[in-house]
Amino acid sequence: MCGIVGYLGPQDPKNIIVEGLKKLEYRGYDSAGVAILNDGKTKRVRAEGKLKNLEEKLAGEKFNGHLGIGHTRWATHGAAVERNAHPHQVGEISIVHNGIIENYLEIKQELLSRGADISSDTDSELVAHLINEEIKKTQNLLQAVQTTLSKLIGAFSVVVMWEKSPDELVAFKDGPPLIVGLNADKNEYFVVSDVQAALQHTKDYVYLEDREVVHIQNKDVKYYSALGAPLKKQVVTLDWNPEQIEKMGFKHFMLKEIYEQPRAVAMAIQPHIDTDKHEVNLKNLGFDKPVDEVFKSIERIIFVACGTSFYAGNVAQYLIEQVSGIPVQVDIASEFRYRKPIIPKNTLVITISQSGETADTLAAIRMAKEKGALTLSITNVQRSSIDREAHGHLYMNSGVEVGVASTKAFTSTLALANLLALQIAKARGTLSRAQEQEYVKSLLAIPSQIEVVLAFDKYFSEASKKLQDFKGFLYLGRGVSYPIALEGALKLKELAYMHAEGYAAGEMKHGPLALIDARMAIVVVAPTDELIEKTISNLQEAKARGGKIISIGTDENPSLKSMSEYYLSIPATSWMTSPLLSVVPLQLMAYHLADSLGYDVDQPRNLAKSVTVE
Amino acid sequence: MCGIVGYLGPQDPKNIIVEGLKKLEYRGYDSAGVAILNDGKTKRVRAEGKLKNLEEKLAGEKFNGHLGIGHTRWATHGAAVERNAHPHQVGEISIVHNGIIENYLEIKQELLSRGADISSDTDSELVAHLINEEIKKTQNLLQAVQTTLSKLIGAFSVVVMWEKSPDELVAFKDGPPLIVGLNADKNEYFVVSDVQAALQHTKDYVYLEDREVVHIQNKDVKYYSALGAPLKKQVVTLDWNPEQIEKMGFKHFMLKEIYEQPRAVAMAIQPHIDTDKHEVNLKNLGFDKPVDEVFKSIERIIFVACGTSFYAGNVAQYLIEQVSGIPVQVDIASEFRYRKPIIPKNTLVITISQSGETADTLAAIRMAKEKGALTLSITNVQRSSIDREAHGHLYMNSGVEVGVASTKAFTSTLALANLLALQIAKARGTLSRAQEQEYVKSLLAIPSQIEVVLAFDKYFSEASKKLQDFKGFLYLGRGVSYPIALEGALKLKELAYMHAEGYAAGEMKHGPLALIDARMAIVVVAPTDELIEKTISNLQEAKARGGKIISIGTDENPSLKSMSEYYLSIPATSWMTSPLLSVVPLQLMAYHLADSLGYDVDQPRNLAKSVTVE
Repeated sequence: MCGIVGYLGPQDPKNIIVEGLKKLEYRGYDSAGVAILNDGKTKRVRAEGKLKNLEEKLAGEKFNGHLGIGHTRWATHGAAVERNAHPHQVGEISIVHNGIIENYLEIKQELLSRGADISSDTDSELVAHLINEEIKKTQNLLQAVQTTLSKLIGAFSVVVMWEKSPDELVAFKDGPPLIVGLNADKNEYFVVSDVQAALQHTKDYVYLEDREVVHIQNKDVKYYSALGAPLKKQVVTLDWNPEQIEKMGFKHFMLKEIYEQPRAVAMAIQPHIDTDKHEVNLKNLGFDKPVDEVFKSIERIIFVACGTSFYAGNVAQYLIEQVSGIPVQVDIASEFRYRKPIIPKNTLVITISQSGETADTLAAIRMAKEKGALTLSITNVQRSSIDREAHGHLYMNSGVEVGVASTKAFTSTLALANLLALQIAKARGTLSRAQEQEYVKSLLAIPSQIEVVLAFDKYFSEASKKLQDFKGFLYLGRGVSYPIALEGALKLKELAYMHAEGYAAGEMKHGPLALIDARMAIVVVAPTDELIEKTISNLQEAKARGGKIISIGTDENPSLKSMSEYYLSIPATSWMTSPLLSVVPLQLMAYHLADSLGYDVDQPRNLAKSVTVE
Repeated sequence: MCGIVGYLGPQDPKNIIVEGLKKLEYRGYDSAGVAILNDGKTKRVRAEGKLKNLEEKLAGEKFNGHLGIGHTRWATHGAAVERNAHPHQVGEISIVHNGIIENYLEIKQELLSRGADISSDTDSELVAHLINEEIKKTQNLLQAVQTTLSKLIGAFSVVVMWEKSPDELVAFKDGPPLIVGLNADKNEYFVVSDVQAALQHTKDYVYLEDREVVHIQNKDVKYYSALGAPLKKQVVTLDWNPEQIEKMGFKHFMLKEIYEQPRAVAMAIQPHIDTDKHEVNLKNLGFDKPVDEVFKSIERIIFVACGTSFYAGNVAQYLIEQVSGIPVQVDIASEFRYRKPIIPKNTLVITISQSGETADTLAAIRMAKEKGALTLSITNVQRSSIDREAHGHLYMNSGVEVGVASTKAFTSTLALANLLALQIAKARGTLSRAQEQEYVKSLLAIPSQIEVVLAFDKYFSEASKKLQDFKGFLYLGRGVSYPIALEGALKLKELAYMHAEGYAAGEMKHGPLALIDARMAIVVVAPTDELIEKTISNLQEAKARGGKIISIGTDENPSLKSMSEYYLSIPATSWMTSPLLSVVPLQLMAYHLADSLGYDVDQPRNLAKSVTVE
């Protein structure tokens, strides 16, 4: 979702904050703003749209002060208009906020009953009101924040400034990341949602844990628990330990890579999208003909891949068939290469492999070429063997994936599958301009929406504890959520060594229902779409037989929620992009379960990252 | 494999035996013979080929006696020539034998060392030698048989007559079925491998258990254990209890239906094969054009089905693509109908449903018709909803399937898939006459070969006991054996409520290998074919990580056997027909495991036979 930069130090806060926000642009946002202290008064500037709109408004402005906060907002509560942009200012208090306040309605009623003047549609503004009420009573920012924190339920990170106290910055979090950057030599302090925003200024960071508060005042940085107990926190110097730098403060590479998915998805789509026109422009794929000509001439697509990449291919089948009307088949590489597959003329064979070195997939693309197919490879590693073999090339641009269990390469591939579906449909004239714009907007929002999902990690962690008690798992889904069920089950197998199997929800009655009893958990991927009622019917049959249900649903779906032991929520998006969100809770549940069982998450037993033998 | 009829009674043995053998013709056989007592001497008549050859040889022969045995043989040890046909006669002893003597070589060496004159290549003749040696010592048929039985290892059923004793018949079994038919009123006795052979003469039967001996002499029928202890056996009157008649003496319908597979497969193919020319003739399928014209005009096939039928469709994909070169896709009905599938023109959509009433499959065929597809239904129930909906029709002809977990409908469908592949290939000119004959011969041998597999049921039962200790199962296969692995895993889920998952063997490295430890069993379907070395490599990786392996292999494959805890053997056949054999041990293992756990095999919890709702 949103990006946060807070600054207290000798430099011009405007430049530091805007440059920091630019580093977080990849997350996607639809408005931005800063609040900077100027001669003891808060000067707030906000703008809809891109950062350049904010920069235009700020051009020429000088700030006589050294304290400020900035924010890029991706709309959750309330439309993407300036009135809802951050920072939110109430009286002498300004705040920026990432995440969601769950007891929003309750707090709003309370504030209204006390006569508060609420000017935006956001949940964020309410936090500013609460702190402002407290500061009026106590004139103590730290105390005001601590009292407010005790009233908040949800997933949030907040940075607060008080115009009466120009040398003080307070921040707290419960959910989304918040990191304190320290440059003691220069007497500079940063509070950011991602170290990227401050890396050019300092290498020393303190990672806040949930419900911790940081209080920076007069060159002194103190940390407190939610109840006010002082805490000692470790400073991580990012050039000190190469692994720490690589892990960016995360316990495991895999967790880091799960958290990198907003950026990975943004990087995957960025070269191929015109963000102003909301237009897909897949070009320069390396074919010897223009891309649209290629896509117009093909009559059939076959995806070939292994493991997680195979499931990405399964998602791609649903997307491409429905949007472009071209028949798509998906094959396991080790089966494809030995079953003497039929490749009629005008077939495009698309391989998916993160490493670009998967032996079966490499053999498959060679065989497809021999049989006269046009080939397109989706890889993360440029100039890898499969990449070199293919006629056309698409890149995940995910950055190095270290965890053996693939995460960001999967979501990046799903993003590319969206682009492919749209470009093929455009080339073949089955997609209107309006539809294209709508789908592109959905896709552009995905990085921010993945951040929203990540913000609720504590719920996935909590749900994962419950999973330990089960003897087995069925992961269910329909349509595009079916391959996500397969992928979720694979993650649990790979990481937690627990037997989980993915199933098309409609197939339950044809056998697996016999497995269901109270020791069998059902993990269902059921975002609100046209299939959800069917899926709920399948679940009812399972629940009636004692099965325990853990659901991934959209926002608050009451009928799904009421039948679930755990209900894990993802934001609403188009059916095409929903797999990019629904897989994230499944990755995190598998991660946390494996970690709590003491397994080596980055190197699961028996497995290797790149399978270069058959 | 073979059929057995023994008769002792007042009627002409020749007619009784030949008519009985005709009832067993469906099993497939390649020679036949009788041995009948005629004025105190054994008259033996044998013929290669069909029963009509034997009948021609017997025409006009009169037998002055009322004791005889007859046999239809499907060659296992030794070619299908008269010399190897049954009955085997040595001295005064004649026998017929079903099954396989495993310590054949050892016994042969022993007999040769004592100067025996062995005239056939069969293991069966050796049994006659052993009994003949004993009878010479003791002049006591029962005692001779008991001594011989103690020397035999394998799966066998044997009926013995001694020309010196015209009112005596002895039989024993260890493996293949052997049933005593009693008609006390008429003083008539039958010993048959299937009650079908005697049903028109009597309704009273005694089912021999393994290593039991029956001794019929002078209107007295006695039963003994292998060690000679007298046994009380229950007489089952087949019209007494309707369920008993229906179950034909089997404990469950499912077990009966597993054992009915030789007949079911024979009935499925019989209308469509010219057994003299070894030619496929799929005709009168109901299309408004000749079948070959239809098959020439189609450019693509999509199979749509649920559960077990979906896996049959997966097998069909391998067969049809490789033999006919037409691209084939397979879809789960509940997914197909909701994913707006692309159905290009000249697509044949084939649905598979035993009941013909499966709701999702019915909806799928209707949708396919709306989209202009030509449709073909494979059902067991004529005039069922799906059958009525389809343009063309193929019938399993399996007879009623009562067990909720499908068995004979599956193998019947696999047989039809073979026929479809061959007919499509013929129509499109991709199959030579010689290849067609070879494949048809393989298919015609399948009923007998299934009987060979069934004869080893006790090994599957024994292996199943071992399965109870595991926490989970991976079923692996490549190529046509991959869907069989899926089906085997489904059977275990359905019946034994144990978590088993089918996987393409080549996909193990891409995740599931992490599940492998000593409490995880791997059931591998690996008949000897061009993929077996790849599969063995995959197994080695699993075994190195502590996984326990249960293999379905062809005959004695030493490298596969050496790495397996249990090695379950099926006869050699073509790659196209191998799924019809390899699935049988998986069905039986699941059945025995569920039965020993006390579960209701015919009505597994939570499941229904015909899924007529979504």
